[in-house]
Amino acid sequence: MKQTQLFTKTLKEAPADEVAKNAQLLIRGGYIYKNMAGVYTFLPLGLKVIEKINSIIREEMNAVGGQEMYMPSLQDPELWKKSDRWDDDKVDVWFKSELKAGGDIGFAWTHEEVITDIMSKYVSSYKDLPFSAYHIQTKFRNEMRAKSGIMRTREFWMKDLYTFCATEEQHTEIYEAYAVAYKNVFDRIGIGDKTYRTFASGGAFTKFSHEFQTLAEAGEDVVYVNEAKGIAVNEEVLEEADLSELGVTKDELEKRKSIEVGNIFSLGTKFSEAIGLTYKNEAGEDVPVIMGSYGIGPARAMGTVVDLLSDDKGIIWPESVAPYQVHLVGLNLDDYEMKDFADGVYTSLKRRGAEVLYDDRIETRAGEKFADSDLLGMPYRVVVSKKTKEEGQFEVVTRKNGEVRFLSEEELYEDFAPEA
Amino acid sequence: MKQTQLFTKTLKEAPADEVAKNAQLLIRGGYIYKNMAGVYTFLPLGLKVIEKINSIIREEMNAVGGQEMYMPSLQDPELWKKSDRWDDDKVDVWFKSELKAGGDIGFAWTHEEVITDIMSKYVSSYKDLPFSAYHIQTKFRNEMRAKSGIMRTREFWMKDLYTFCATEEQHTEIYEAYAVAYKNVFDRIGIGDKTYRTFASGGAFTKFSHEFQTLAEAGEDVVYVNEAKGIAVNEEVLEEADLSELGVTKDELEKRKSIEVGNIFSLGTKFSEAIGLTYKNEAGEDVPVIMGSYGIGPARAMGTVVDLLSDDKGIIWPESVAPYQVHLVGLNLDDYEMKDFADGVYTSLKRRGAEVLYDDRIETRAGEKFADSDLLGMPYRVVVSKKTKEEGQFEVVTRKNGEVRFLSEEELYEDFAPEA
Repeated sequence: MKQTQLFTKTLKEAPADEVAKNAQLLIRGGYIYKNMAGVYTFLPLGLKVIEKINSIIREEMNAVGGQEMYMPSLQDPELWKKSDRWDDDKVDVWFKSELKAGGDIGFAWTHEEVITDIMSKYVSSYKDLPFSAYHIQTKFRNEMRAKSGIMRTREFWMKDLYTFCATEEQHTEIYEAYAVAYKNVFDRIGIGDKTYRTFASGGAFTKFSHEFQTLAEAGEDVVYVNEAKGIAVNEEVLEEADLSELGVTKDELEKRKSIEVGNIFSLGTKFSEAIGLTYKNEAGEDVPVIMGSYGIGPARAMGTVVDLLSDDKGIIWPESVAPYQVHLVGLNLDDYEMKDFADGVYTSLKRRGAEVLYDDRIETRAGEKFADSDLLGMPYRVVVSKKTKEEGQFEVVTRKNGEVRFLSEEELYEDFAPEA
Repeated sequence: MKQTQLFTKTLKEAPADEVAKNAQLLIRGGYIYKNMAGVYTFLPLGLKVIEKINSIIREEMNAVGGQEMYMPSLQDPELWKKSDRWDDDKVDVWFKSELKAGGDIGFAWTHEEVITDIMSKYVSSYKDLPFSAYHIQTKFRNEMRAKSGIMRTREFWMKDLYTFCATEEQHTEIYEAYAVAYKNVFDRIGIGDKTYRTFASGGAFTKFSHEFQTLAEAGEDVVYVNEAKGIAVNEEVLEEADLSELGVTKDELEKRKSIEVGNIFSLGTKFSEAIGLTYKNEAGEDVPVIMGSYGIGPARAMGTVVDLLSDDKGIIWPESVAPYQVHLVGLNLDDYEMKDFADGVYTSLKRRGAEVLYDDRIETRAGEKFADSDLLGMPYRVVVSKKTKEEGQFEVVTRKNGEVRFLSEEELYEDFAPEA
């Protein structure tokens, strides 16, 4: 992509009311636009990051056997009354409205009720179980206070997956498989080393549920972690009895700020009983299905990456989620031959399949180009200047550690776009 | 995908209240689920169709230079008051709610106001123009009556693209480029021969706007068409003066039912003036940007394909949007060796990159399998039976014309999964 064709521009300042580092950097880079408190637009560069995160999530969910679908936002109150989650006294984040045709309607903040209702149409026998299904879809939550930039917003994508099992053994097996898939997702997007599967209270069905908490100064959560033992618990699980079960004592744990980037939860038969999702077991009896739910917010994951992987100059994208791998920065482009040369390098990289953002701006000073490049944070910056052209050597800077290499044109193509 | 792993099943009957053919077939096939009137879930097979349609739309929009982004649903009333489209007396399809933090909020039914506001941050000079941007995003419309299955729903995806130009010449050029892109989309999804760029009234800025209308008995629109001349107009453009400008007379036109599958519209400076989107021209004067809008609903396109391309047995997907190219139907699978053989064919096809749905159900009769295969409508049905195994010949039936071929195993792989 040529920067002169991209409609966004970098901005010197983020809006004054935007205090979160993730949103400040993303707004300044032209990744996102703040429409109002807790409501953001994902601009072309930002959407590319989200799509890369979503691809990783999809690969990991599909690998366990998750089937992707797409459920609606509009919700029938009658369904939610069955599980007693329609009343504003029970759930305080509903957005509700009225149908012109008559009657109330809600905007989904989660989808347990919906998917349980759908599955009651398709599950009849124990032979239909186990299986899992998910969607990546917009959730609406009427938060009293939106905060932490793109971390806690009133409208956000959620990947929510649900499992359906006949037995506890089946449930435990699939639950653990998705726990591994979650770890893989966080590893792949570059925050795995700071992310802990954290023990939390489990509700009526199981002793523990699990949050995936990423240690971060900007976090609004708190966890108690022992890095050496690789164990973390949240506040709910600080009782000595719980801790001894986990093989750790209270004074071995350090209190740290963190961001909840995912959670997995055994639902038991709460929703299957309320909505009526049963299967016939081998004896021909109707038995409620055992369910689990598993959530990741792609935009919160993106914000966490930015909060963790950035410096005072800007963002440092890992290759796995960077909108482009290479930022080709052209200098001296007011020289016609130079422009021609730089355009040629861009075209060659692109034709060979490299993901390249090309700073082809003519009137912008080199210093401003380098500052923008650091702010935007592609993994590799390649400079094309008069000197490059004369000496046949491309300066390649690795964003995350500042390492500088010089490559010939051929080596450049080898490195960033090896032909298939 | 093995059918035994797919959580959906075919249904004998669609819900009694579902009268539209597209929804009846899609519900029976397990492509969609009706959550309530005008609100549907896209099940795994249905989402695959939508994704194929979206890919085609993206390719065609990107080819003209459209930049993909993602705008939110939640809307600030203040923005819409500027264009006088907040009041329920002006716009009767709003879903509105209230923020817990105080104040009204709307759910977007279109995005002109939002994108104009965003672009006012990025456009400053005539050098920034022309360009175009789009998103594929959920729209909410509080329709008094949802109807025609997935054609007119209360919640639906829309690909809405907007163009931004400095001059009328730029606008005309980009408008025509997107008109061609639209024609390409409808050609590629298999409804091009029945789809007419239809002249409609143009509003304040231009004489005509254009709808893309697909001739269909199930349509809720009406067009006047001359198939030989390849010209169509809607009711608004039936005046003799308009028709003579288009080179056709009233009695050369035939009245036909149709489905509006897309529309393109010159917005002029209506929104740029209301919201304040201006650029500096070469003389340094502030001038409002000339805009255009271009809409396609992917689910409506899907419904149109089903309405047009189906027979009394079921759906007939074109290859371009079929969830799978091949429906591999295994027979006699209660025989262990036979099951092994059929599984092997499935694995070989998949490994070579073919898109295969495999009916691996053991207890289902052949007749029911064939009926389901016709209902589901993949372009090619390949039968694997004892006879196939013995004779080494696979029966391949083309869904759209019933043509039967016999292929050897090698020819089968050649045809459906030529190795790269």
